[in-house]
Amino acid sequence: MGKYALLLIWAVLSLPLQAQPLPQANQERLVQRLQELAQFKETIRGRVGRVAFSRADLEARQYLMDRMRQAGLEVYVDFAGNIIGRRAGSNKTLKPIAFGSHIDTVPNGGDYDGCVGSIGALEVMTLLQEHGIRTEHPLEMIIFTDEEGGLTGSRALVGKLSPDALELMTHSGKTIGEGIRYLGGDPDRLDEVRRSKGDLHAFLELHIEQGAILENKGVQIGVVEGIVGIEWWGVTVEGFANHAGTTPMNMRQDAVLAGARLALAVNEIVNSFEGRQVGTVGRFEAQPGAPNVIPGKVLMSLEIRDLEREKIWNIFRRIEARAREIEKETGCIISLDHLNVSAIPAPTDPRIRTVIAQSAEALGLSHMTMPSGAGHDTQDMAQIAPAGMIFIPSVGGISHSPEEYSRPEDIANGVNVLLHSILALDRLALD
Amino acid sequence: MGKYALLLIWAVLSLPLQAQPLPQANQERLVQRLQELAQFKETIRGRVGRVAFSRADLEARQYLMDRMRQAGLEVYVDFAGNIIGRRAGSNKTLKPIAFGSHIDTVPNGGDYDGCVGSIGALEVMTLLQEHGIRTEHPLEMIIFTDEEGGLTGSRALVGKLSPDALELMTHSGKTIGEGIRYLGGDPDRLDEVRRSKGDLHAFLELHIEQGAILENKGVQIGVVEGIVGIEWWGVTVEGFANHAGTTPMNMRQDAVLAGARLALAVNEIVNSFEGRQVGTVGRFEAQPGAPNVIPGKVLMSLEIRDLEREKIWNIFRRIEARAREIEKETGCIISLDHLNVSAIPAPTDPRIRTVIAQSAEALGLSHMTMPSGAGHDTQDMAQIAPAGMIFIPSVGGISHSPEEYSRPEDIANGVNVLLHSILALDRLALD
Repeated sequence: MGKYALLLIWAVLSLPLQAQPLPQANQERLVQRLQELAQFKETIRGRVGRVAFSRADLEARQYLMDRMRQAGLEVYVDFAGNIIGRRAGSNKTLKPIAFGSHIDTVPNGGDYDGCVGSIGALEVMTLLQEHGIRTEHPLEMIIFTDEEGGLTGSRALVGKLSPDALELMTHSGKTIGEGIRYLGGDPDRLDEVRRSKGDLHAFLELHIEQGAILENKGVQIGVVEGIVGIEWWGVTVEGFANHAGTTPMNMRQDAVLAGARLALAVNEIVNSFEGRQVGTVGRFEAQPGAPNVIPGKVLMSLEIRDLEREKIWNIFRRIEARAREIEKETGCIISLDHLNVSAIPAPTDPRIRTVIAQSAEALGLSHMTMPSGAGHDTQDMAQIAPAGMIFIPSVGGISHSPEEYSRPEDIANGVNVLLHSILALDRLALD
Repeated sequence: MGKYALLLIWAVLSLPLQAQPLPQANQERLVQRLQELAQFKETIRGRVGRVAFSRADLEARQYLMDRMRQAGLEVYVDFAGNIIGRRAGSNKTLKPIAFGSHIDTVPNGGDYDGCVGSIGALEVMTLLQEHGIRTEHPLEMIIFTDEEGGLTGSRALVGKLSPDALELMTHSGKTIGEGIRYLGGDPDRLDEVRRSKGDLHAFLELHIEQGAILENKGVQIGVVEGIVGIEWWGVTVEGFANHAGTTPMNMRQDAVLAGARLALAVNEIVNSFEGRQVGTVGRFEAQPGAPNVIPGKVLMSLEIRDLEREKIWNIFRRIEARAREIEKETGCIISLDHLNVSAIPAPTDPRIRTVIAQSAEALGLSHMTMPSGAGHDTQDMAQIAPAGMIFIPSVGGISHSPEEYSRPEDIANGVNVLLHSILALDRLALD
C-alpha cells in the first residue's frame, strides 16, 4: 500500500477519534506502578536486580498479574512462562493485536528497560477499561519470559527456542528449563505456545531507547525502523612474548601494538561507511600481561551491528583486509573467527511505522525513525506478525544500569502513542 | 687512566701469558655440569623450575658446593645465604677478585640464565686448579641468593636489602627472611655480610644475553656497558562504559580507542630517540571486557629502560604530553602513575670493559659493547667495586623460558674470556 493511500485511510478512520478525544495516560499512576514494580529486587552474587527466574521475578510477575486482572484482563501463564492478558474484541472473527515487553532485568540493571513497556501496556488496558472503549480486534498484553537471557519467551512463541537453550544456566542459578517451570510454564510443552504467521493482526512494543539519540536531538518519540543484526568475531593477535628489557625495539613482535592498530582500524572503517552501523572492540586483553614482558598475545572481540546484513559483512571484509596489512607490517598473526551468536536484522513493518509516526503527529509529539541497536522481543515477533516499536528517550543514553532513567512525561507520551497506534491498527486492514 | 696507557700495561703484562698458553675451558665438562645442575627442579603450583628457597634450590646449592670444594675452594654460606668459595692468592695484601652469578630460576625458567655464569665461574676455578695457576689476588666465587626474586643476595652484600624485603612472600612459599634461614643464612645478621667500597679489587659476571642482539649480529662476546635503569608507570584510561548497540559511534568515550592510541604513541616516541632505550606496554586490559559493551576503562602498564635516567624521563615527558593530546581528542581521561619499583642505571667500569674486550680480542673472538636490558647482581656489585659483565649469545633471544639455550662453544668462549679477564685484572692496578 502506498503512503498516500494509507494517509487517506488514516484521515477517514481518525475522524471518529477526533470527534471523541482519546483518553490520556495517567502520568502519576505510571510512575507509581513503575516504583511498585521496582520494589521487587534481589541480590544475587553481589548484584542487585530482577534477573529472570529469580524469586524477585516471580513476585513481580504476581504483582503485575494482579494489576492486569484489575484492568479486566483474562490472565494466564503460557507453557513458556510468558504472561498473557486477553481483552475480548467486538468482532470475534478478527485476529488479536498484541503488545507488551518484559520485566526481567540484567544483573545490576535498572527500573525502566522493559518495565516502561510492560507498565505502559498495562496503562493502555487500564485506560480502555476506565473509558469503556471496546476495540474490534481482541487485545493481548504479553510479558515475555527472560528477555535479557536471550529472548527466551518470544523465541518460544515463534517456535525458535532450541531444546539446547533449555539447558543453559542463568543468573538465577536455574537453567532456562528449570526457570520456565519455576514461573509456572512447562518446557516439555513449548510446541503448544507456538504462534504462526498470520495468528496476530499486529505486534507493538514500547521501550526506552537505551541510547542518547532522542535526547541529543530533542525528539520525543522514536519510530523503530528495525532491530539491527549483530555479528561477533573472536580475534586473536599472536606475536612473540619476550623480555621487555633485552629485546630491542626493532626485534619485537608486540601483539599489543598490532592489536591497537586493529582496534583503531575497526573504528575508522566502521565510520567510513554511510549510515548508523556500529562496530565495537569490547574485549582487549594482553597476555601474559606483565609490565616487563612484551605481550605475545592479545585476545579481542569484534562486534558489528547494522540493519543490513550485507553491510555488516562489507564492513567486516574491509577490517579483515586491514588485518592482513597489519600482519605484514608487524609480523604478528591475526585470526578473526566468526562466532555463532549472530542475530539477523529484523526490520519492522513499514505500515506500522507509518501508524506510529502519525499517532505521534496527532498527539503533537516530535518523532524520528531510528534503528534499535539493542535486541528486543519484537525481533522475534516480527517473524510472525507485522511488528513495530516505539522508543522514548533515555536520560544520558544510559541503560543496563541502576542509573537508567526516563522522565514521566516521556513515558506518558510513549503510552499515548501506543494507545493511539493500537486504536488506529484496530481500524486498519493489514493482510 | 687513558686508553693508551692501559694498552701499554696490557702489552707488557700479557707477555708471560703468551709465553705460557692459557688453559681452555673444557666444553664437555661445562655441558655435563649444566645438565647435572638442571636436574634439580621442582614443580610449584604447576610451574617447573628452581625458584629461590625451594627444596630444589637447596639441593642444587649442595651439589654446587661439593663441586666447588673439589675445585679446591674454601666454601661457606654467608648470613645472606650467598655461597662464597675462596681461593687464596700469592699476595696477602691484595684485595680479592670476585666473580659469579646465581642458580635460582624464575617459575618455568630455563637452564642457562644464571647457571652459565655459575658453572662458568666453577670452570675457571677448576682450570686454575688443574693447571696449578696461582693468582696474586685472592679469588672469590659468589653464587648469589635469590637473584630472580629481587637481587636479594647482592643487595645484602652491598647493604641495601631493606628489613621490609625480608617479609616479602616468594614463589617458594617462604618469605625472603624464612628463605635465607632455610639456605643456612641468618636474616638477623645481614649487617655482617655487608661489603664496603674498596673491599674488592673487581667484580665480574658471565651471563647469557637474554636477547638476540649478539645472535643477530653474529658476534660472540658482549661487553656490557651497563645495566639499564627501569621505571614503571601504572596507566588508567577512563572513558564511559555503554551499550555497544544503542550508542552511536560519535557519542562514545571508548577507552580502548584512547588506550590503543597511547600504546602506539609509546612505541613511536621511544623509537624517535637515538640509542638503545626500550619502552613497553605489557598490560592492556579493557573493562568490563564484554563484546557488547563499549569499554569504560583500560588498565595499562608502561615501562621504560635506558642506561641514562635522564633519557627515561625525557621519553616519559613526551609520552605524557601525547596522553594529554589523546585526552582532548577522545574525551577520555588518562592517568599515568609512577610506581616505586624503579632501578637506577648501573654503568660498568670502563677499565674492566677494556680488559674484557681485549681478552676477547686475544682469544680471537668477535665482541661488541651493549647495554644489559635485564637486571643482574652486577648492578649492585658495581656500587662497591669496579664491575664488568660478559654476555654470550642466547639462541633466538629467548630467556625466562624452558626454551632458553646457549651453544656449548659460546659458553666455553664466555668462560675463556672470564678466565683471561680475571688473570689480566690480577696484574692490573685499579685503585
